[in-house]
Amino acid sequence: MPTRLEPAKLGLRTRLFKLLFESDSRAAKAFDIGLVLLIFVSVGIVMLDSIDSYHQRYGDLFFYTEWCITILFTIELALRIYCLQKPWLYLKSFYGIIDLLAILPSWLTLILPGFQTLIIVRMLRALRLFRVLDMVILEGEKRLLLDAMIRSRHQILLFLFTVLMVVTIFSSVLYLIEPADAGFTSIPTAIYWGIVTLTTVGYGDITPVTPLGQFISVAIMLTGYSIIALPAGIFSAEVIRALREERYSREACPGCGRDHHEQDARYCKFCGTWLDEDTVDPRKKTESPAT
Amino acid sequence: MPTRLEPAKLGLRTRLFKLLFESDSRAAKAFDIGLVLLIFVSVGIVMLDSIDSYHQRYGDLFFYTEWCITILFTIELALRIYCLQKPWLYLKSFYGIIDLLAILPSWLTLILPGFQTLIIVRMLRALRLFRVLDMVILEGEKRLLLDAMIRSRHQILLFLFTVLMVVTIFSSVLYLIEPADAGFTSIPTAIYWGIVTLTTVGYGDITPVTPLGQFISVAIMLTGYSIIALPAGIFSAEVIRALREERYSREACPGCGRDHHEQDARYCKFCGTWLDEDTVDPRKKTESPAT
Amino acid sequence: MPTRLEPAKLGLRTRLFKLLFESDSRAAKAFDIGLVLLIFVSVGIVMLDSIDSYHQRYGDLFFYTEWCITILFTIELALRIYCLQKPWLYLKSFYGIIDLLAILPSWLTLILPGFQTLIIVRMLRALRLFRVLDMVILEGEKRLLLDAMIRSRHQILLFLFTVLMVVTIFSSVLYLIEPADAGFTSIPTAIYWGIVTLTTVGYGDITPVTPLGQFISVAIMLTGYSIIALPAGIFSAEVIRALREERYSREACPGCGRDHHEQDARYCKFCGTWLDEDTVDPRKKTESPAT
Amino acid sequence: MPTRLEPAKLGLRTRLFKLLFESDSRAAKAFDIGLVLLIFVSVGIVMLDSIDSYHQRYGDLFFYTEWCITILFTIELALRIYCLQKPWLYLKSFYGIIDLLAILPSWLTLILPGFQTLIIVRMLRALRLFRVLDMVILEGEKRLLLDAMIRSRHQILLFLFTVLMVVTIFSSVLYLIEPADAGFTSIPTAIYWGIVTLTTVGYGDITPVTPLGQFISVAIMLTGYSIIALPAGIFSAEVIRALREERYSREACPGCGRDHHEQDARYCKFCGTWLDEDTVDPRKKTESPAT
Repeated sequence: MPTRLEPAKLGLRTRLFKLLFESDSRAAKAFDIGLVLLIFVSVGIVMLDSIDSYHQRYGDLFFYTEWCITILFTIELALRIYCLQKPWLYLKSFYGIIDLLAILPSWLTLILPGFQTLIIVRMLRALRLFRVLDMVILEGEKRLLLDAMIRSRHQILLFLFTVLMVVTIFSSVLYLIEPADAGFTSIPTAIYWGIVTLTTVGYGDITPVTPLGQFISVAIMLTGYSIIALPAGIFSAEVIRALREERYSREACPGCGRDHHEQDARYCKFCGTWLDEDTVDPRKKTESPAT
Repeated sequence: MPTRLEPAKLGLRTRLFKLLFESDSRAAKAFDIGLVLLIFVSVGIVMLDSIDSYHQRYGDLFFYTEWCITILFTIELALRIYCLQKPWLYLKSFYGIIDLLAILPSWLTLILPGFQTLIIVRMLRALRLFRVLDMVILEGEKRLLLDAMIRSRHQILLFLFTVLMVVTIFSSVLYLIEPADAGFTSIPTAIYWGIVTLTTVGYGDITPVTPLGQFISVAIMLTGYSIIALPAGIFSAEVIRALREERYSREACPGCGRDHHEQDARYCKFCGTWLDEDTVDPRKKTESPAT
Repeated sequence: MPTRLEPAKLGLRTRLFKLLFESDSRAAKAFDIGLVLLIFVSVGIVMLDSIDSYHQRYGDLFFYTEWCITILFTIELALRIYCLQKPWLYLKSFYGIIDLLAILPSWLTLILPGFQTLIIVRMLRALRLFRVLDMVILEGEKRLLLDAMIRSRHQILLFLFTVLMVVTIFSSVLYLIEPADAGFTSIPTAIYWGIVTLTTVGYGDITPVTPLGQFISVAIMLTGYSIIALPAGIFSAEVIRALREERYSREACPGCGRDHHEQDARYCKFCGTWLDEDTVDPRKKTESPAT
Repeated sequence: MPTRLEPAKLGLRTRLFKLLFESDSRAAKAFDIGLVLLIFVSVGIVMLDSIDSYHQRYGDLFFYTEWCITILFTIELALRIYCLQKPWLYLKSFYGIIDLLAILPSWLTLILPGFQTLIIVRMLRALRLFRVLDMVILEGEKRLLLDAMIRSRHQILLFLFTVLMVVTIFSSVLYLIEPADAGFTSIPTAIYWGIVTLTTVGYGDITPVTPLGQFISVAIMLTGYSIIALPAGIFSAEVIRALREERYSREACPGCGRDHHEQDARYCKFCGTWLDEDTVDPRKKTESPAT
């Protein structure tokens, strides 16, 4: 992506690009590790700062560390923008938006103090970890599962929607028959209880007290319990389909015309013909052309 | 379904049918979207109206909007009945009954005021969403999973029944040994607790206090935890069976006419005939009559 | 099992056997349905009788109905013993023991009044439903799943044991670090909490209050959540293995020697040879024997 | 491992080794059973001793039994060290460390009294049960599942990490919008609640009271509910992959020597040679050299 400017700058931008966006050299890997550490420290500070006792003892330390990190992230973002040819495309991408959100609110508090939602946005820095993850884990494996998840999303959403509709109707019945002091103060609250029950979370802040209410709640529980792994079944079916597809090639054998050969097969398992049409069967080479 | 009446009416009834019951034209799609929006608004009003603060502020707005929607649904149902040849069949079907239930109670309150159960029936309008869903989602996929669910229903019901029997017996033991103030006031209540525990919902409104009771409850928990995905295993086995059926070709054998051969079969397993109509059986080539 | 006594008695015993132990005739089916109804009524009476309000209103009705049912069950058991040739074997079997337990305690209360555990034993009558279930459901399907469950029992028990050991150790740590008024009054109680947490039941009667305790509990929760379907995975693997085995025969083809033919195959899919060694290929019969 | 010392000692060390480390002879099996019993008694004593009533009644009995067991375990460890040639390697292994931890703290209390953490370490003796388990269970089965678990660990850890990141962000939002007396006193506490909800444990010690908080918690619950069996899906995919490997023959090709051919392959997919050594390649029959 860097372009041929003056030779001196070219080297710098390419080197920065390799450092920031790739993980090949040792320097790039060290940069990634340092970045992960900074993200963990930053998120950790937000978490600890929310505890009163820690806030009173270390509040200042947190404040200064937080600003050092913000400044470092800002410098990093500036360098990223600098070494790219088309920085606007990057800033509109998922990672670019997170990088912006990671530093903008901190700077905004200088202009508009008392930005309480700042805390959440500082937590969003955790999403920056995905960038590093992306380059570390087994590409192939992750792709398979991610694809299976994406392909099953329609069925899982349909499943969820159907379940929610049924829960809504039953929760409304509970709202009618249960007294208000049992917690069923409105239909939305009853639906909240219904989902707490169906997902087997079961806080216990709202529980039915009438026998009919308990009976209906038992029906909701058994339903949630029985179908709890339907999404997993949908997901597994997609994984199995994908696993099966990846093993077999769709190319036909020049000899017998059958496909469904394994990816690593060189000879047709049905008739023994050499499968690759573009090359010559090595066995033929050894059979001397002379008659 | 519309029939040939006077040419003018024919056009109207056919056009109405295409608009209300099908989704091909842009008008029909727009109608569906409008219908979904009305259903969401109607159900949303029921939910918000149940919250006291909203009821006091917007109660009148809700009332008038609700009646507008009821009148719109009534007009819609009248139109549906009008454009069908055999409306009685429709009114006895699942969707027809829901359409009736969506408007009848509202009208009944004019005759019999104070129809509290009205609220629930207005929630049933949510089931009308299924009609729209049916036409939108991927038919094939839904069919596969729905079929797998239907085929596994006997085993899942047997599984549920066995589990309930065992829970009933253990809950009765808890009822005997636990003091009443722990919540085990009767056997049905103990069974309610047993199912709350087995399904891992665990409200906590009733919990065992005696050591033996806690021991038995631990047994129920571990059982529920271990078998929680048995229904999913049953369901997945059916899905896998269905996926495997995909491995069979539907082509008929030229010899005996039967299909259901494996994809990689070359000879019919029923009569031994060479399956591929476009090529010659290799065995015939070797049985050369001429020397 | 009935034996040849005098012709008159023979008929009676055989007819009773067919009525009580089999389900072929309409009378036998009617008997089964009546038996199921009686069991449900009997169990239902025990459940309702435990509710104070019902006990006060209908206590006498329950008492008399219960004794009628007990007498009916006693007569039934006497008839079963009568029509069997070796009744002792039956009384030692699973169903025989349940039949005895279903009536003995009721009779014992006449001798030893105040038999509170009587209630539980009357609940055991529910197990008699298994007898009827056995004959009703799809034999084949139930066999497959039951076998898969039995084959996976070693692995599931090993899994449960490992999990329990780990939970025991972590719960002991919680017992040490949590104050007693949080509920962790002893190690067994802490283990009870640990299992409540691991199985995701989560009553909430005991919850950790120290940060370290909450951290360890989070570890237990995530573990329980991640492995919750491992038993199902074990079970599903067995089901898949069984499904695969049932499709393929292990017999070799006399022509090419390959096995792995489907159960319903008559000709080898690889070379077209007739698979059954003991009979002649029908095609050969049609090929005229004349040379 | 025992070496040839004087014939008398050689016999003793070998016999001790066979007794302690193997399970072939009846004496060795009896030793294993005795060891398991002692471990159960020891762990049981720790558990019972933590209950106040038992501690007061049987405290002395527990104390003396505990020391007998400690002395027995010490003698056992001494014997293990004695009969091994390289005891240091054993003491550094997993089982060796547990054996040390099982007795050291007890002895340390003589020197440093008031070792409260002693209790936990005595619980670690339960891990010694693994040694016995290892030799008892079906090796093959355990290997398959264990391998599948190990192979899926990367994906399951990635899955857990992603889920935790998302929960952290949502929990922070809850921390902002919920009042402190609802329990959301700090971000770590909110994350604790988030995991309690996501894993469907749902203690109920902390529950959202604001409508928006309840809405977000519903989103967390539905997410946890839908993906609860994703780890199982990952695990099952690995099991299926392993089961499929069983479909490959381990026989080597006579031509190129490679194995890993499908069960139904007739020709080597790598070099095209006819795989069955006992028969002749049908193609050779047709290539008759004589014209």
